[in-house]
Amino acid sequence: MLRRLFPAVVLVLVTAVPALADEGMWPFDYPPTDLLQSRYGFTPSREWLEHVQRSVLTTGGGTAAFVSPDGLVLTNHHVAYGQIEKLSSPEHDYVRDGFFARTREEELRCSGLELKLLWETQDVTAQVRALMSGPGTPEVLAAKRKALLTKLESAFAKKTGLRVDTVTLYQGGEYWLYGYRTFDDVRLVCAPDEQAANFGGDPDNFGFPRHDLDFTFYRIYENGKPVRPEHWLRVSEGGVKDGELVLLAGHPGRTNRLRTAAQLEYERDLDRPIRIGLQERRLEVYRRYAALGAEQERRSRNAIRGLENNLKRERGFLALLRDPAFFAGKRAEEDALRARLAKRPELVAKYGDAWDRMAAVQAELRTRARTRSLREIGRVSSLVDVANTLVRLTAEMEKPNEKRFREYQDDQLGVTRFRLFSRAPVYADMEEVVLADQLQMVVDSLGAGDPWVRAALGGRTPAEAAHALLSGTKLADVEERQRLLAGGRKAVEASTDPLIAWARALDPAYREMRAWMEERIESAESVEGLRIAEARFQLDGHASPPDATGTLRLSYGKVAGYPQTESFVPPFTTYYGLFDRAHAFDDRDPFTLPKRIHEAESRLDLATPLNFVTTCESVGGNSGSPFVNRAGELVGLDFDGNIQSFLWTFTTADHQSRSVAVDARGLLEALRKVYDMNALADELTKR
Amino acid sequence: MLRRLFPAVVLVLVTAVPALADEGMWPFDYPPTDLLQSRYGFTPSREWLEHVQRSVLTTGGGTAAFVSPDGLVLTNHHVAYGQIEKLSSPEHDYVRDGFFARTREEELRCSGLELKLLWETQDVTAQVRALMSGPGTPEVLAAKRKALLTKLESAFAKKTGLRVDTVTLYQGGEYWLYGYRTFDDVRLVCAPDEQAANFGGDPDNFGFPRHDLDFTFYRIYENGKPVRPEHWLRVSEGGVKDGELVLLAGHPGRTNRLRTAAQLEYERDLDRPIRIGLQERRLEVYRRYAALGAEQERRSRNAIRGLENNLKRERGFLALLRDPAFFAGKRAEEDALRARLAKRPELVAKYGDAWDRMAAVQAELRTRARTRSLREIGRVSSLVDVANTLVRLTAEMEKPNEKRFREYQDDQLGVTRFRLFSRAPVYADMEEVVLADQLQMVVDSLGAGDPWVRAALGGRTPAEAAHALLSGTKLADVEERQRLLAGGRKAVEASTDPLIAWARALDPAYREMRAWMEERIESAESVEGLRIAEARFQLDGHASPPDATGTLRLSYGKVAGYPQTESFVPPFTTYYGLFDRAHAFDDRDPFTLPKRIHEAESRLDLATPLNFVTTCESVGGNSGSPFVNRAGELVGLDFDGNIQSFLWTFTTADHQSRSVAVDARGLLEALRKVYDMNALADELTKR
Repeated sequence: MLRRLFPAVVLVLVTAVPALADEGMWPFDYPPTDLLQSRYGFTPSREWLEHVQRSVLTTGGGTAAFVSPDGLVLTNHHVAYGQIEKLSSPEHDYVRDGFFARTREEELRCSGLELKLLWETQDVTAQVRALMSGPGTPEVLAAKRKALLTKLESAFAKKTGLRVDTVTLYQGGEYWLYGYRTFDDVRLVCAPDEQAANFGGDPDNFGFPRHDLDFTFYRIYENGKPVRPEHWLRVSEGGVKDGELVLLAGHPGRTNRLRTAAQLEYERDLDRPIRIGLQERRLEVYRRYAALGAEQERRSRNAIRGLENNLKRERGFLALLRDPAFFAGKRAEEDALRARLAKRPELVAKYGDAWDRMAAVQAELRTRARTRSLREIGRVSSLVDVANTLVRLTAEMEKPNEKRFREYQDDQLGVTRFRLFSRAPVYADMEEVVLADQLQMVVDSLGAGDPWVRAALGGRTPAEAAHALLSGTKLADVEERQRLLAGGRKAVEASTDPLIAWARALDPAYREMRAWMEERIESAESVEGLRIAEARFQLDGHASPPDATGTLRLSYGKVAGYPQTESFVPPFTTYYGLFDRAHAFDDRDPFTLPKRIHEAESRLDLATPLNFVTTCESVGGNSGSPFVNRAGELVGLDFDGNIQSFLWTFTTADHQSRSVAVDARGLLEALRKVYDMNALADELTKR
Repeated sequence: MLRRLFPAVVLVLVTAVPALADEGMWPFDYPPTDLLQSRYGFTPSREWLEHVQRSVLTTGGGTAAFVSPDGLVLTNHHVAYGQIEKLSSPEHDYVRDGFFARTREEELRCSGLELKLLWETQDVTAQVRALMSGPGTPEVLAAKRKALLTKLESAFAKKTGLRVDTVTLYQGGEYWLYGYRTFDDVRLVCAPDEQAANFGGDPDNFGFPRHDLDFTFYRIYENGKPVRPEHWLRVSEGGVKDGELVLLAGHPGRTNRLRTAAQLEYERDLDRPIRIGLQERRLEVYRRYAALGAEQERRSRNAIRGLENNLKRERGFLALLRDPAFFAGKRAEEDALRARLAKRPELVAKYGDAWDRMAAVQAELRTRARTRSLREIGRVSSLVDVANTLVRLTAEMEKPNEKRFREYQDDQLGVTRFRLFSRAPVYADMEEVVLADQLQMVVDSLGAGDPWVRAALGGRTPAEAAHALLSGTKLADVEERQRLLAGGRKAVEASTDPLIAWARALDPAYREMRAWMEERIESAESVEGLRIAEARFQLDGHASPPDATGTLRLSYGKVAGYPQTESFVPPFTTYYGLFDRAHAFDDRDPFTLPKRIHEAESRLDLATPLNFVTTCESVGGNSGSPFVNRAGELVGLDFDGNIQSFLWTFTTADHQSRSVAVDARGLLEALRKVYDMNALADELTKR
């Protein structure tokens, strides 16, 4: 389910910095025309680029595209999953059964969903540079820059009528205004049953061969009528061939291609192993809980799926970091960059020591890596999270806005309150089991004499403490939370709720650790990361693409299988393969043959390609991106990357990294022969 | 093609020693009844064991089994490949088209094929021990033992009417007489087309999922009539389930489970990397040669396939040796064995220093590892081999029999002459290209000043030398070889053939290296390996099975998929998967859908299981072994192991090692619906 959605809001500790890639994810403002011409003999015209750019939308965490003149939009089932779930009811389980509107009237309006289309951009780097080279302290200049950008945004918005964001590329090397058209009347048209969309489930996630119909259709309305987009991608009936050029247009979330070797070593040696250990233990305890009965299984299902998915990704990243060849490559990249820098004395003076300084920050970070992670275990409980939020928020609100923790500043309060007052069900019994186990782990790791442990347990065993906290608290009651927040710091300090008391007791340690992390580590990492990015941009300019920033990018590559330990992974799969895999696992979950496909077998051309893999770079956020051929037609729908594609977060393609797509031919075959959606298929393909 | 045939004659440098396995490949004389009972609740009866033992045959390099009361025998297509090829003619290409005898008259008699069936065994350890504890020098005792065993063999043969071999288990811990029934009238009954037998070719070799119909049927005749075997395995129509117990009866060739960590380190650091480097370079030059034209492609095809296959295996072994977890496991095994030994002072005195002595031998071996391998490059040329053989053989023949190199002693001369006078076609142009490149590599590695290099080149460039040698020699003419051999040492010394002169010039270096290798390395490895094996046997006796020795063994396990990097490998494949893989690769070689199967699609039940994987241990030599269920029925036919099964050469099962089988249901489906061999299918299944 989670796969590769890119969380719209994410706390990132490390600085993102650009790549040595010769492939890359390129802004449409400077597409890789030379590379495309030299490698594939293809030069996209201005019209081609505009056509593709103005067909592609972002959902916030994923990508989508216009695919008909009547406002049809195609994205992934797992991107639309939350909407499909929200539209379901006890009578209609659209997740389980799929949703198929055969008339406009049957289309269902989504709530809280806005799609954005990048329409126009403007480079404002020169204005920002001119301002920043003027006099003033860094703080003054930063404030001036903010004011300038606000002014520029307003002017651009006024001129174009678009929603405008400032986009920073190359870690501050360039400033752009991105103007979006926005659409908020989005209606669900067609979603397959989850078993077809997510056949193979977690075992097959991040893998290939795959056999998933991971698609959903929306239709966008304006003023109660289907929108008539100026650009949309026709779905190709001809499909793609092995080795054929394809281009991927979407919104990749984040890459970290200039992370230094020292940062990666920290991640390899401490950060990821610690996190994996914590999550493995948590998964184990959820599984024990799930084994208690059907209701416990249901309550813990989401947590288990999320942990499994996350662990698969984390382990994939760790395996990559532990691969000596990968590390040698990263080191060679870093050495080459520094060697080129060394030939430019004026740059050496300005940037030369950034790598050593970054290494020093990592050395300090290592000293508290384990303790810091262990103290965060309260996150496993939504009730502990509520208590922490109440204690911290009420204290922070007494400070002026700019002195507060970031998440409690005025512009963030909406999100914070939303979380605090969520009426999502709370399973205190489950949270207790998990918290007890995580506390036990902290005791085992830090020792009973550790001051934080003593404060957390108060002389009790972990099980006793967890029970007292979670059975004694009243915070499951949203009105109680509202009462405490309304009463402010005083009410919170007077509260005798055991969880509030616990949060108060641990708050000083939290504030000390956070201050150290922000002041000693993150700010230094940010400064050195920016210096490295600047050095790179001074040397290379647009010769390398900027790191992904969640904004629209174009990547290119070809349909291609790849060698793997045991054999050779094919470029395509077919419906035959779906039937094979279901039978090979004796139809057991998650390899159960989807019922409608089973029933449609005699109508299907089983040789129809179902999924394919390409060398086009993609990362989280690309889910739902269209694969486009030279003619600007949609030939596939990105829905995953294989486990080797994690590499793309750090560096350019290796010989095994692949993006995974639903083949347009497989999609049309399903619409016509499985789901009886001929009109929809015709709308996608008509000329 | 090569897959896992176990070469009947093989030069093995290292000593084979037994395993710490708790699974294992067990002699039928002491089957793992306790393990089977505790793990699977199954205790095979005496009758069950006799029934299975007396149904299984060896082909010399592979395994086969009686599968009908009328003498039908089932083995692998790749085991029978040489016979099928020999029976083919320009008019009838049975390799390409398959062979299908629909009457007894159409069955074709094979030449030079003898199958052996282990009928009875006798433990003669006590007699040998009694003799060996008597007085005498080691040489005298060895001669006495040989005489005793010859006498015992004769007596057993006389008593039973069987062909008798002495079999040494536990590296000399036990001596057994194995009495075989032999069959030499073997007729080809049915072989599928090669594309069906070997679908996926080299890319899929050692992998899973697989989709191969790797089977061939023979029928054994005696006195012109089909033999009526006392025991044969009925082919099960019910098949096996995921997780079900299966037992594998066959002739695994060789395992090395007590090899010391020092030996494995040598193999990991030097032996395998050097060999892989030499072979990779050779493969590259063959491929360049193949690219010159269709005839060159044809000439080099076998060499290329052989090298590809071998490299895949070598790289698999190397990856395993480089896996820290594997090495840690081996070390732990070794440490545990030595720790148990340390508690028995009488054994410490006798065996305690064997591991350190073995390490010292490896240290010496390391000093000349590279040079020794490089000097062997002449092996790439059959003509160089002929020249070397003539020079060495004529010199050796002047010595008394027991002083000669092993391969020139009287009992080996037949094989040596057979190779020397082979009329197989010689492609001197191809050999020249390869020899030139390999010589260049030696120069690059050892330097032009190296004495061996100077002797080999005689002032010429590698290309010049190779050209002079291979275009100037007359040794392609078999009569010339016969003339030289008949003339003996004198004729060879007088020869002006450039290749003979070359072999003469390099002979002293060869003899010096070989003497060092045999006297300093191999004899010491043999002695220390035996001491370690003895120590183990003294501690454990039959609690661990002996290393494989090419003789009949029983292994057990269950049908089971396994986790792999990207996903989960299923326990079975189906015909659907065959069609999927062919279409996924666009029907390109080696993934072309076999024509007859393509034509049979509408008749086939595509969900029929085609291949499966099990945890039963197997190694080279097991090809063609029957998988048997509790009822003693044949449910599958072993034809490969996955790449992780290479582990089984060194240690017991890990969680990914699997044997790969043709499913009996897939076999019957093919006989009935693809090959129109209903009578054969009925013969296999009738009750």
